[in-house]
Amino acid sequence: MEHFQPSEVKIGLLGGGQLGKMIIQEAINYNLNISILDPDKHAPCKHLVKEFVCGSFSDYQTVYDFGKDKHIVTIEIENVNTEALFDLEKIGVKVFPQPQVIETCKDKGLQKIFFQNNELPTSDFFLIDSKNQISKYKDFFPFFQKLRVGGYDGKGVVKLTSVEKIEHAFDAPSVLEMQVEVLKEVSVIVNRNESGEVKCFPTVQCVFNPQAHLVDYLFSPSDLKSNKEQELKTLSIKIAQALNIVGTLAIEYFIKKDGTILINEMAPRVHNSGHQTIEANYVSQFEQHLRSILNMPLGDTSIVKPAVMLNVIGSENAEGPAKYDGMSNLTKYKGVYLHLYGKHITKPYRKMGHITIIDETIEAAKMKALSIKDIFKVTA
Amino acid sequence: MEHFQPSEVKIGLLGGGQLGKMIIQEAINYNLNISILDPDKHAPCKHLVKEFVCGSFSDYQTVYDFGKDKHIVTIEIENVNTEALFDLEKIGVKVFPQPQVIETCKDKGLQKIFFQNNELPTSDFFLIDSKNQISKYKDFFPFFQKLRVGGYDGKGVVKLTSVEKIEHAFDAPSVLEMQVEVLKEVSVIVNRNESGEVKCFPTVQCVFNPQAHLVDYLFSPSDLKSNKEQELKTLSIKIAQALNIVGTLAIEYFIKKDGTILINEMAPRVHNSGHQTIEANYVSQFEQHLRSILNMPLGDTSIVKPAVMLNVIGSENAEGPAKYDGMSNLTKYKGVYLHLYGKHITKPYRKMGHITIIDETIEAAKMKALSIKDIFKVTA
Repeated sequence: MEHFQPSEVKIGLLGGGQLGKMIIQEAINYNLNISILDPDKHAPCKHLVKEFVCGSFSDYQTVYDFGKDKHIVTIEIENVNTEALFDLEKIGVKVFPQPQVIETCKDKGLQKIFFQNNELPTSDFFLIDSKNQISKYKDFFPFFQKLRVGGYDGKGVVKLTSVEKIEHAFDAPSVLEMQVEVLKEVSVIVNRNESGEVKCFPTVQCVFNPQAHLVDYLFSPSDLKSNKEQELKTLSIKIAQALNIVGTLAIEYFIKKDGTILINEMAPRVHNSGHQTIEANYVSQFEQHLRSILNMPLGDTSIVKPAVMLNVIGSENAEGPAKYDGMSNLTKYKGVYLHLYGKHITKPYRKMGHITIIDETIEAAKMKALSIKDIFKVTA
Repeated sequence: MEHFQPSEVKIGLLGGGQLGKMIIQEAINYNLNISILDPDKHAPCKHLVKEFVCGSFSDYQTVYDFGKDKHIVTIEIENVNTEALFDLEKIGVKVFPQPQVIETCKDKGLQKIFFQNNELPTSDFFLIDSKNQISKYKDFFPFFQKLRVGGYDGKGVVKLTSVEKIEHAFDAPSVLEMQVEVLKEVSVIVNRNESGEVKCFPTVQCVFNPQAHLVDYLFSPSDLKSNKEQELKTLSIKIAQALNIVGTLAIEYFIKKDGTILINEMAPRVHNSGHQTIEANYVSQFEQHLRSILNMPLGDTSIVKPAVMLNVIGSENAEGPAKYDGMSNLTKYKGVYLHLYGKHITKPYRKMGHITIIDETIEAAKMKALSIKDIFKVTA
C-alpha cells in the first residue's frame, strides 16, 4: 500500500446492481478503478464506471474474459461461474471472496454441510434432488423447502405443511429445513482481509414482511443483551475463519426463545442487512468490502447513531417504468436518507431502494420510521 | 416532485472536478441524470456519468450546445460563460445559480460593489484596471491585490507592502483590498431553493497554510459564541436573499479582534470549506445543492459529530502522475475519511484530496488531526 496508485489497480466486479452501485459510491473516495460485468444493459452501475461489460456472469468464457486483465475480481452476487474464477486464480488474478467460498455459499445445501462439518449450530435439514423425494420426510411437517441454488429476496422458498402441499413444491435440488420457533432474526456482517484481520459489524435485527418474504425493516443496534451480542460476534468470526474468506460475509441467524443461536444462511458479499452502515456506522459495509479485498486495515465498525433501515419495494399492482411518489414529504425529515437503486422497471415487491433513518436513540428512530413508512411509494 | 422520475430530469453540470465528483456521489442516491462539461479529458468525473462532454465552459457555443437539451444547468466552478447561460434561460432551461448571480460572484470587483450597494459589511477597497494605477493608492499600504476574475486556491492574490513591490503586482483588473487585523477566518455555506427556503450550515473555522495560501485545516463547529454564530447566520441569509440565489453560496468572513464581521468573499457553489459535511452533518453540502436546484425541501444542516477537515495537497517538489504514501497507516484510524480526487497529475500545493476527521469532541478531532497530519503524502 506504499506508493499506492489506486487507479492502476484494476478491480472487476461481477454484478452491477444496487450493491455494486453502493460499492462504487465508496470506491470513488479512493479513486479506485472498477469494471462491471452484468447481463442487464440497463444495470444501475452502467454509467458509473469506465468499463461496463454487458454479459452473463454465469457463462464461463464471459467471466474468464472479463477477469483476465484484472488484478482483483470480486462479486456483488454469488450466483456466478466459479469454474472461470478458479481458472482466473490460476493465472494470478486475486479472486475475493475466493471461488471455493463462493461455491460453498451459493449452494444452500453446501452451506448446511459446511455448518455440520465445522460443528456450527444450524437447524436440522435434509437434502433432496427432486420433488418426489419430499414425501419421505412427511413425519417432519411443517418445514421449509429452499432451492439449493438461485433463490433470492424470498424467492425459492416455500413452506410445506402437509402432503397435499407437495404439489406446490419445487422440483429441483433443495434443502428441507425443519421449522424452528424463532424469537428473533438477526444478522452479522463480518469482514476479513488478506492478512487475516477480522472485524464484525454490530448485530442488526430484522423484522420481516410476511407477504413479500422480504426484510420489512431492520434496526441497529439490536435489542440483544451484551453477552448474546458477544456470542454472535465470536461465532461470526469463527465462521469467517473456517471459510478462510477474504471479503465480506453476511450471516443471518435465528435466535430461539431459549436463547439458542442457529445459523440461518450466509452470503459471501455485502448485504441488504448492512445498508444502514452507510450513514450510521464509522465505516460502511461497502467501504469495508473494498478494504478487505485491497488488504487495507479494516475500518472501525462501531455505531455513530442508532438506525432503522426500510426497504423500498415496488407497489403490489404496479409494473413498468418506475415513478416515485412522496419524495418531497419524505425528504423534509431530519436524518432520513433515501437511496434509489435506479432500476428502470418496477414490479410488485421488487427492491427499488431503501431508506435509512438515524436518530439519537433507537426508539426515536423507530418512531420516525413508523411515521414515514407510508409516505414514499414506487408506482408505474 | 410527485410522480417524480429522477432519471428523466436532465441536469447539466459545468465542471467535472472534485466538487462535481462529490455532487455525483450524492446524486447517485436519487438516481439523478447528470451530464458533465469539462475541458480536461481526464477530468475526475469523466467515467461517473452517462454524458461527458470535453469542451471549454468559457466558450459561448460549447456551453449553449451543452445546455440546450437540459432541464437544469448548474456549476461547480464560477468562471463560466454567463452569456450562454442567459440565452439558455431564455429558451426555458433553469440555470441555478442564475447567470446574474454567477456574474456578480465570479468578479471580485462586482462582489465588492454588491456588498456596498446592499450595505453588507466588507473591508475597504479600490478597483483598478491595470498595474500602473496602483501607485495612486500608496498611502494605503499594506494591502492585497486580488485579480477580479480567475483567481483560485490562493492564486491571483498578492500582498503589496511598498512601492517597490508594485513590480510584482498583477497587470489586470483587480481589487485593492485594505488589510484588516483578522482574529478568525470563518465560512458559512447557505442554500436557497426555488421556493425561497433558506438554510445555513453551522459556521466552520479555517486555519490557513501561509505558504500555500490554502486552507490548512478547518474545524466544525467553530469556537464562536452563540450570539456571533447567530449574527453570521442572519447575515448569510441576508446575502443569499439579496442575491436571490437558487443553489449554494459559500461565504468567507473575517472576524476582527473587536468582533466586527467583514465579508471576505463568496462563491456561488459548493466549497472546500463544506467538505466535512459529508460525514459530519445530517445533510452534506453536495446533497443540499441538489435539493436546492431541484426545489426539494432543504435538509437539516445540524452537526452529527464535530469534525476537522485537512486538505491533501501535492508535495512541494513533486510533479507528475500522483502516487499516495501512507494509505495503510492513515486508514487504521477510527473516524478518518480519505477522499482522493482522482487527479492524474500532482503539482506542488495542488489540491489532490481531503481528509475528514470526526470524533466525540472538537478537541479530540483536532488531536487526532494533529497525529495523522503528516502520515499521508502525495508524491510523483
